[in-house]
Amino acid sequence: MKIAVLGYGVVGSGVVELMHKNPESINAKAGTDIEIKYILDIRDFDDSPFKNLFTKDFNVILNDPEIDVVVEVIGGLNPAYRFVKDSLLAGKSVVTSNKELVSVYGDELLQIAKDNNKNFLFEASVGGGIPIIRPINQCLAANEIESISGILNGTTNFILTKMVKEGYSFEDALKTAQQLGYAEANPAADIEGIDSCRKIAILASLAYGEHVNPDKVHTEGITEIKLEDIRHADKMGYAVKLLGTIRKNDDNTLFIMVAPFLVEKSIPLSGVEDVYNAILVEGDAVGISLFYGRGAGKLPTASAVVADVIDCAKHIKARKYLYWKSSDGSFIEDYKKMLCKRYVRFDGGVTCTDIRETFTDAQCTEEDGSLVFITSDMNEYDFDKALASLESKCASTAAAVIRVFSI
Amino acid sequence: MKIAVLGYGVVGSGVVELMHKNPESINAKAGTDIEIKYILDIRDFDDSPFKNLFTKDFNVILNDPEIDVVVEVIGGLNPAYRFVKDSLLAGKSVVTSNKELVSVYGDELLQIAKDNNKNFLFEASVGGGIPIIRPINQCLAANEIESISGILNGTTNFILTKMVKEGYSFEDALKTAQQLGYAEANPAADIEGIDSCRKIAILASLAYGEHVNPDKVHTEGITEIKLEDIRHADKMGYAVKLLGTIRKNDDNTLFIMVAPFLVEKSIPLSGVEDVYNAILVEGDAVGISLFYGRGAGKLPTASAVVADVIDCAKHIKARKYLYWKSSDGSFIEDYKKMLCKRYVRFDGGVTCTDIRETFTDAQCTEEDGSLVFITSDMNEYDFDKALASLESKCASTAAAVIRVFSI
Repeated sequence: MKIAVLGYGVVGSGVVELMHKNPESINAKAGTDIEIKYILDIRDFDDSPFKNLFTKDFNVILNDPEIDVVVEVIGGLNPAYRFVKDSLLAGKSVVTSNKELVSVYGDELLQIAKDNNKNFLFEASVGGGIPIIRPINQCLAANEIESISGILNGTTNFILTKMVKEGYSFEDALKTAQQLGYAEANPAADIEGIDSCRKIAILASLAYGEHVNPDKVHTEGITEIKLEDIRHADKMGYAVKLLGTIRKNDDNTLFIMVAPFLVEKSIPLSGVEDVYNAILVEGDAVGISLFYGRGAGKLPTASAVVADVIDCAKHIKARKYLYWKSSDGSFIEDYKKMLCKRYVRFDGGVTCTDIRETFTDAQCTEEDGSLVFITSDMNEYDFDKALASLESKCASTAAAVIRVFSI
Repeated sequence: MKIAVLGYGVVGSGVVELMHKNPESINAKAGTDIEIKYILDIRDFDDSPFKNLFTKDFNVILNDPEIDVVVEVIGGLNPAYRFVKDSLLAGKSVVTSNKELVSVYGDELLQIAKDNNKNFLFEASVGGGIPIIRPINQCLAANEIESISGILNGTTNFILTKMVKEGYSFEDALKTAQQLGYAEANPAADIEGIDSCRKIAILASLAYGEHVNPDKVHTEGITEIKLEDIRHADKMGYAVKLLGTIRKNDDNTLFIMVAPFLVEKSIPLSGVEDVYNAILVEGDAVGISLFYGRGAGKLPTASAVVADVIDCAKHIKARKYLYWKSSDGSFIEDYKKMLCKRYVRFDGGVTCTDIRETFTDAQCTEEDGSLVFITSDMNEYDFDKALASLESKCASTAAAVIRVFSI
């Protein structure tokens, strides 16, 4: 089986490296010899041991009937979308690590793959090297999925870990992440939650069989998270984590959002630190499962890509059943209707008595001149109204509000 | 597709329940309607809504050409082995949750399945509902697996959790586990590590492609674990866990054993409590992945069985590539050669000076009249010799020795 790798960046070079590191083992598992025939990149790699494989012309790959599988690891929508679509239409299977592509065009590309009896696989698009697409699609197939919640972005988790463990401010932690190469010069996609949003959208589409466009997912990042709130939370028995979260309602609508949450330390997600990712899946039969590992990085991501290539080799004639249909997103419920507890901090102007007059069940504690409390479960409309009434009564403004996660 | 369920015990009734709970969803994922045509059990279930499906005669199932898939959830070797073998030889695929069967006869049954172009699937045999067989076999296929270590038995983990959290003795914790139905009246298979041994043998066979018979796996249980050692360990930053563990050596031999270990609290296995299981897999590309969830119980286990049934339906003509070959086990290295640290307790007769004369790097602390210390990495021959020399010099005997886990 001959394949082409589109893009020789971090993941692409990892794929080529891995294919050459364990070839006997990989070929044995694939049941056939897998050969990289082309690597597409606009750059020159004259010193590479693979220099004879490079091409700058995608049409060479597209028009070569020997190419069974195209591995797209360029990232972004353009030109990845066109390359992937054309490859599938030309009767080639495609493996990708591109979460933006899958989250935006997954339904269309899966349909083309189905129509052409080819595979479109993307294990690496969520959770990097962590097996999560197959477990949800296959191993938990007998379950109705009731919720999925995950730490889906290693950069933000690294930043939050630095803040709680070493007392860094958000800004200093971000700078360290950039120095270590975990965060890019423009870190917006990570810290504003956009990367997590794409990944949770893919998991929702997969688990519920209808496409969830990322623009339907309410998304907040961690740029407003203050060290003092992380410390208060820690003392109260919570970690602060950026979560992508999906909850199925009884009427089969979904709540889905990306936001920072306080996570109780008894919940296994709370102990996930540094660049690690973890995804907690709740099924009606299996209960809670957790999948943990390296959510990014060259070889972990390449490991998931190569696993998909091996699966393509094993299913060169029989298609994998991986599919979701298009949707207008009307099954996604207004996130403000989701019940949850909230952590609130005031830096003065209110008393615990004031707070309990408005938020009856709030547990209120004073810490370093601030008052912090956790509300009972409320939807966001009721919470906003109650908070506004408290603020106006006391002529003071809440300094921080963070949702509290529950399973 | 028509199936037969052999055994209507805990798991079997769970399989039937689940198939009737989510049929539309299951049939959609399977791409065909799945019907339970027979349930085999020697008992009568006259009040069951499925009473018309029961039979006491396996030959009815074996000789019915309509039956594509046989689900074996009887457990034990006899008659399960004969039923499974005959079913595969008759050209039926088999799904089982039976770890004893797979660990002892897996190689033979996989070979018969291969020869007959049928599937023999057993996701439920390890980790209950936790997806682990497919992730190792498929998702991590691009990796050389360097180690696997897991909390594979929920009963023993429940007992150890009760001891550390609530100060129960081993005997009291076992009694509670029995009262709650987690441990059987004869708990030997759990507390002596036999159940964990079967599961780690299956994982080793799967990950390294050669059959590992459970009798080749050195196995110790938790019956000797004392509450005071759990407390000392806790203070020193460790949890005590019964682990099945496999380590690949550079010469491709394996260390494999089941034993209680001290697990540092920074290692994610340490936080796994109660009846939960977790399996930590280390691959050369992916690094560390962890799979966590309910390792036993009616519906979690049934969930894994039904997932395999769905996979059989999708692969009714194309076989799944799940296979390992027979082996004399000569690639399994003497476990006593494995380097590891050890926790040791003396209840008197020795001083920290004595200890450091024998175990140079030992960190020694005095606690409640006992001396506890942790050695450096040693193989078991060297450790036994050193300990014997210390004991004879001080005319005192170590009260406890527990291995310390490392990744």
